[in-house]
Amino acid sequence: MKNNLNKSLKDSRENLVDKIQKTYGPIDMLLEGGQKLQNVIITYNTWGKLNKNRSNAILICHALSGDQYAAGINPVTKKEGWWQNMIGANRILDTNKYFIICPNVLGGCMGTTGPSSININSEEPYGLSFPIYTIKDMVNMQVKLIDHLKIEQLFCILGGSMGGMQVLEWASSHSNRVYTAIPIAASYRHTAQNIAFHEVGRQAIMNDLNWNKGNYYKNVEKPRHGLAVARMIAHITYLSEGAFQKKFGRDMQNKVLSWGFDADFQVESYLRHQGISFVDRFDANCYLYLTRAMDYFDLANQYDGNLSLAFRNNKCKYLLVSFSSDWLFPTSESRTILKALNKVGADVSFIEIQSDKGHDSFLLDVPEFHNILKGFIEGAADKKGLN
Amino acid sequence: MKNNLNKSLKDSRENLVDKIQKTYGPIDMLLEGGQKLQNVIITYNTWGKLNKNRSNAILICHALSGDQYAAGINPVTKKEGWWQNMIGANRILDTNKYFIICPNVLGGCMGTTGPSSININSEEPYGLSFPIYTIKDMVNMQVKLIDHLKIEQLFCILGGSMGGMQVLEWASSHSNRVYTAIPIAASYRHTAQNIAFHEVGRQAIMNDLNWNKGNYYKNVEKPRHGLAVARMIAHITYLSEGAFQKKFGRDMQNKVLSWGFDADFQVESYLRHQGISFVDRFDANCYLYLTRAMDYFDLANQYDGNLSLAFRNNKCKYLLVSFSSDWLFPTSESRTILKALNKVGADVSFIEIQSDKGHDSFLLDVPEFHNILKGFIEGAADKKGLN
Repeated sequence: MKNNLNKSLKDSRENLVDKIQKTYGPIDMLLEGGQKLQNVIITYNTWGKLNKNRSNAILICHALSGDQYAAGINPVTKKEGWWQNMIGANRILDTNKYFIICPNVLGGCMGTTGPSSININSEEPYGLSFPIYTIKDMVNMQVKLIDHLKIEQLFCILGGSMGGMQVLEWASSHSNRVYTAIPIAASYRHTAQNIAFHEVGRQAIMNDLNWNKGNYYKNVEKPRHGLAVARMIAHITYLSEGAFQKKFGRDMQNKVLSWGFDADFQVESYLRHQGISFVDRFDANCYLYLTRAMDYFDLANQYDGNLSLAFRNNKCKYLLVSFSSDWLFPTSESRTILKALNKVGADVSFIEIQSDKGHDSFLLDVPEFHNILKGFIEGAADKKGLN
Repeated sequence: MKNNLNKSLKDSRENLVDKIQKTYGPIDMLLEGGQKLQNVIITYNTWGKLNKNRSNAILICHALSGDQYAAGINPVTKKEGWWQNMIGANRILDTNKYFIICPNVLGGCMGTTGPSSININSEEPYGLSFPIYTIKDMVNMQVKLIDHLKIEQLFCILGGSMGGMQVLEWASSHSNRVYTAIPIAASYRHTAQNIAFHEVGRQAIMNDLNWNKGNYYKNVEKPRHGLAVARMIAHITYLSEGAFQKKFGRDMQNKVLSWGFDADFQVESYLRHQGISFVDRFDANCYLYLTRAMDYFDLANQYDGNLSLAFRNNKCKYLLVSFSSDWLFPTSESRTILKALNKVGADVSFIEIQSDKGHDSFLLDVPEFHNILKGFIEGAADKKGLN
């Protein structure tokens, strides 16, 4: 039984690794929580070519439910990458000019070592024995990857949401290794409401009887229902109220009411689909750990709330982007970051993009957003002599 | 086994009924969905005395998680009623002057017939065999109660949230029986986002393995986890982001992080408590039905979106109240109602109360809210000769 399990896990992992372009590791890491994590494998994708000076590298940091398939066909979902509209020849992240790297985060479930990975000591999946990791740990892992690629300074690092948190952590702790930093729809800490939404999602997972204290990998029944509910909750926060109303309003699935608990309204059917499709590509334990990492993130905490101290060694150039209808990481959070950066005399642009699409705007076709990114990146490339 | 079950259900019901001041019924009802519901028992509380002219009656409509214990000690929670601060001698709802009635809604779980009640035909709890009911059905049940009490016209009808929906339904369908109507923090319909939050709550319940398609009354294990998660989700929507931040911020439970999934942050502990305490006083099926009734509510629907037609026979006097930080039923919803009422020349006052407490403001000590209510009700009482 145990051998069968390991075989099937190994099969699926090898199957996955086959399709993933690159891996680095194993490496050992000392985590922020004090625990040692051994045999960490980093999986990542790259597009374009590193130039001779190794000066044209762009690092993309993905969000909570993202992965290293920012572009290309994702082997699990069979869908295009989540930033396909941004990456390619003559696109904003121009593969003719830049070397673009997107790693799966530490603790992810797309190949980089995480709670669903096999612990080589026990030959069992980690589950809850995986140590709690932080945004700083994710960044430290990325630093090791950038070291491995012999890149001294990244031309640009960018990402939205949890990706934006990683960008801010890079800018805070490794400013000398970043030429430009673009945190998008992000914050320097999780608010009480942010933590509240994550906590409900975690409770939905941990209350699923199939979760079994995280030991479900051997079982046929996985905590699918709990993870689907967690995803549904989160998904509501990714859209604005206006986007929901515009997209669905009170439109019905059928002409008549079911007078029951079927999905009468299109918005119900949409959310159910979001939940169900997520569990096919994501691991429930991984969701717990990643939400925890976001909750723990507070750049100002170690400086008694004085955020500007987090950027006191600042050396890079910033573009802060928020979206007007984003209520998960509202513009006010970006303004707080702006003020802190201004205090240390940082070179910082800030823009609130008018969009009715909510937090998910950073993933969607929002022309003003794309124009701003394009202009900023091209200007920086000029200055760095990359054009 | 079956006999034991019925006995224990009967015991707990009798125990409850003993403590409930008044019941009316059984009555038969024809529901909006076309089904007949027989043997409906209505439980309600009253305070104060009906005057000789039967002209001083105030009807309170409770919200989703409320009940008929608007004042007094709730026998289940052992706590004071949810509007204790409003009801009593010389209070806004002055028991020296008014006869105040608060029924448990149709389909509730505090004594009025609902999904957890025993169907006398099968001698089993209804569960999902209980018909879907609407806000209109709740109001029709209240009309029967008011008929029974021989009250021709209510002096005032008021309620917040789902209670406000009932107030609007009364004003639309039974305007001649209402002197003043006060819908608070309410809307004339559920938006896509409102439906989305309810749908996630329902999925949390229905995905709980102990829910068992609604047949859990005989079982030791009830769908407690699912109901708790549903309550936690809803509770986030009842507070404003600012209220969460002010109340909890990133305050910790202990001085050090747990580096695990215990409740590190006070907001997590608070939400867990909200979930757990709710399941002790509420029925999971009932939660499904009540959220469905709110989702189905759309006063404008039968008039092709022309809300003013819903008030075309208007005869009563209105006070519309919204709260500035309520993002569940924002001020814009009350403004739409205001415009529709203005179109039919209704006598309507509207106020947006400045409050940072979110949707739950209607339950809390918000002095401006209480002053406005007091002034409006006293003015109307003067006009009606009740002072």
